[in-house]
Amino acid sequence: MDLDDLRARADAADAASPLRACRDRFDLPADLIYLDGNSLGALPVAARAAAADVIDRQWGHDLIASWNDNGWWDAPRRIGDAVGRLVGAAPGQVVVTDSTSVNLFKAYVAAARLRPGRTVVLTDPGSFPTDLYVLEAVARLCGLEVVRRSPAEVPAWLDHHGADVAFVAVSSVDYRTGERWDLPAVTRAAQRRGALALWDLCHGAGVLDVDLDDHGVDLAVGCTYKYLNGGPGSPAFLYVADRHQEAFDQPLSGWQGHAEPFAMSSRYRPAAGVDRARVGTPPVLSLLTLEAALTAYDGVDPATARAVSLSLTGLFLDALAVCCPGLEVATPHAPARRGSQVSIRHPEAFGIVQALIARGVVGDFREPDIVCLGFAPLYTSHRDVLGAVEALVAVLAGDEHTDPAHRRRATVT
Amino acid sequence: MDLDDLRARADAADAASPLRACRDRFDLPADLIYLDGNSLGALPVAARAAAADVIDRQWGHDLIASWNDNGWWDAPRRIGDAVGRLVGAAPGQVVVTDSTSVNLFKAYVAAARLRPGRTVVLTDPGSFPTDLYVLEAVARLCGLEVVRRSPAEVPAWLDHHGADVAFVAVSSVDYRTGERWDLPAVTRAAQRRGALALWDLCHGAGVLDVDLDDHGVDLAVGCTYKYLNGGPGSPAFLYVADRHQEAFDQPLSGWQGHAEPFAMSSRYRPAAGVDRARVGTPPVLSLLTLEAALTAYDGVDPATARAVSLSLTGLFLDALAVCCPGLEVATPHAPARRGSQVSIRHPEAFGIVQALIARGVVGDFREPDIVCLGFAPLYTSHRDVLGAVEALVAVLAGDEHTDPAHRRRATVT
Repeated sequence: MDLDDLRARADAADAASPLRACRDRFDLPADLIYLDGNSLGALPVAARAAAADVIDRQWGHDLIASWNDNGWWDAPRRIGDAVGRLVGAAPGQVVVTDSTSVNLFKAYVAAARLRPGRTVVLTDPGSFPTDLYVLEAVARLCGLEVVRRSPAEVPAWLDHHGADVAFVAVSSVDYRTGERWDLPAVTRAAQRRGALALWDLCHGAGVLDVDLDDHGVDLAVGCTYKYLNGGPGSPAFLYVADRHQEAFDQPLSGWQGHAEPFAMSSRYRPAAGVDRARVGTPPVLSLLTLEAALTAYDGVDPATARAVSLSLTGLFLDALAVCCPGLEVATPHAPARRGSQVSIRHPEAFGIVQALIARGVVGDFREPDIVCLGFAPLYTSHRDVLGAVEALVAVLAGDEHTDPAHRRRATVT
Repeated sequence: MDLDDLRARADAADAASPLRACRDRFDLPADLIYLDGNSLGALPVAARAAAADVIDRQWGHDLIASWNDNGWWDAPRRIGDAVGRLVGAAPGQVVVTDSTSVNLFKAYVAAARLRPGRTVVLTDPGSFPTDLYVLEAVARLCGLEVVRRSPAEVPAWLDHHGADVAFVAVSSVDYRTGERWDLPAVTRAAQRRGALALWDLCHGAGVLDVDLDDHGVDLAVGCTYKYLNGGPGSPAFLYVADRHQEAFDQPLSGWQGHAEPFAMSSRYRPAAGVDRARVGTPPVLSLLTLEAALTAYDGVDPATARAVSLSLTGLFLDALAVCCPGLEVATPHAPARRGSQVSIRHPEAFGIVQALIARGVVGDFREPDIVCLGFAPLYTSHRDVLGAVEALVAVLAGDEHTDPAHRRRATVT
């Protein structure tokens, strides 16, 4: 196989892609190969008009009446259902509000309360930092012990030590290596020992066939500004399986989660259903812009997004093997074990990311030595994939990654 | 005094108002008298272009680079300083992020930890419900007892029972009656007994001369979508006085509050200063729209806003006394004891609000029997004030408030 074969394969895959029409739903700068949708999704065309409508008509003209007349009040649940469709959750189990970190806090405390008397919580030491930080904070407040084990070891560990475990908190995809963890197996292993399974879907929603309901997941959280393209910092989501909602007892008991929020009672009584996970007034402009952004997924089912994602990452891995055989790939090659990103481990990872950006290929650096390239199936083409590989070959061949101009600076995931 | 005298007074006050040019900084529907800025502030003209720029250029074109290049990362602190100016806080003590309810949670837990061993927290039973709900949740998590007393009784109560009080949590203005509580006196009374004073400024920021630093307030929170006009659900603010920042230990330890957020350490270490009150990724679109909205306060100092607010509410109260002498006014008449709203108590309050809306005067109903009219000094004129009184006279004279068309439905504050 050579580059010409890869080009022919890319063109054929693009022509046959069930998502080829979706790229027009996005505004992307010309000549940019954007492989950072795992950090900040591209701008959906529909988001622009929605935001302008929220500002001009809803806020500017209708003003306070918009809470009822323009559906502001119901937005967290309504948009929750739209996100739910993409993660395999039937309606009524997802709300969109607050940040991922805040939703993790709610979910952790509520999970501990759903399993009183159990004192251990199990998590992945490779979790995104906020997951670890918030879990330690909850452990301190609730008197829990945090045990850190790789998801690969979790089922066996649970078999030996599981009786005291209240819940297992794992991410669907490792944010550095791009490894996809086995959600059904970890969920079953947790539940076999009476523990709950709590999933962070930040790097999975919109690109994996997560199927929360089918796999009997208990709780899940995720952000909406990565592959769901909701815009910078768009509110996060929280999934509470139907069967847990009545006993879901979260500590951020703000007035929007009250059973009768407009009665202005002086005592808290949680709303029925997942609305009890709401807290305060959500950022409506960001929220309704997200709602419009999600229409980029209209007609796209998660299995199709997953298939295209695998086709993109598969082509990238094959092209790397042909063009850059010496590079260390941190992402598992087996399709079932990878998410929608491919990570390359390299001592000059930071410089490589900067040099790629200089060539119009935007990826992400992750500490300490990872080049992370995300493949958003709705707007990334197979031709983009090959373009990225060609840029990478040129960077490495020209030693561009060691250029002092590509000095270190902060990056944000 | 008759209506003609009032009209002459209104015209003279509008002509002499130091804020008369500020109204042009807002887009308000023609012929609407909007007296609900205490619930959702009007649209500042500058907000529109800022939101479009965030979407088109920053998100759509610059994409992930905007975290650095367009100042997204620093926004919570930068905008915090802008809010700080309006509440009398020197730079470096305010962050803008999350909702009021979430910020209350952080502040309550941190306040309890600043006063270990003290087991009582004191609050106003008339607080906005979310303040009470979140405080009860924190009391449960941290083993505290909540005592509810009117702010008017707090100083005397503290003299007798204060030794066990960790903190006193009070709002600057009662959201129903519009009564302004005595911030300096309650703060001093709390601190005399070694307790902290924590203020909710939701109904005060932008209209009162709050002067947090001058009065030595310990902690404060507030929303930005009322008199600060940040747009629906724009992120809230949290003030931590300099002297408490090093020991400020809040439980929502998300990665954006870490000392080195980009090191991706697996252990939490709080940032220096008020940045440790940050949690997860904030809703950037709402946040930067708020930043532009705050420019409507450029050149306006809080004392001026307060003076104009008092002039507006004073005219309204005087006009009510002349035109509707039988109405029960729930707001204290003494200038020092009122915020920027006037509340009327009436058994048909809901119908009155609806009938006023039908006449183009937008106010707020508050359970169970309050007509609440808010006077935003930047865009409400004295002529608007008289227009509202004239509409109220017409509603009552025509029994419009008992019309079945003005039936009950949900409202949002």
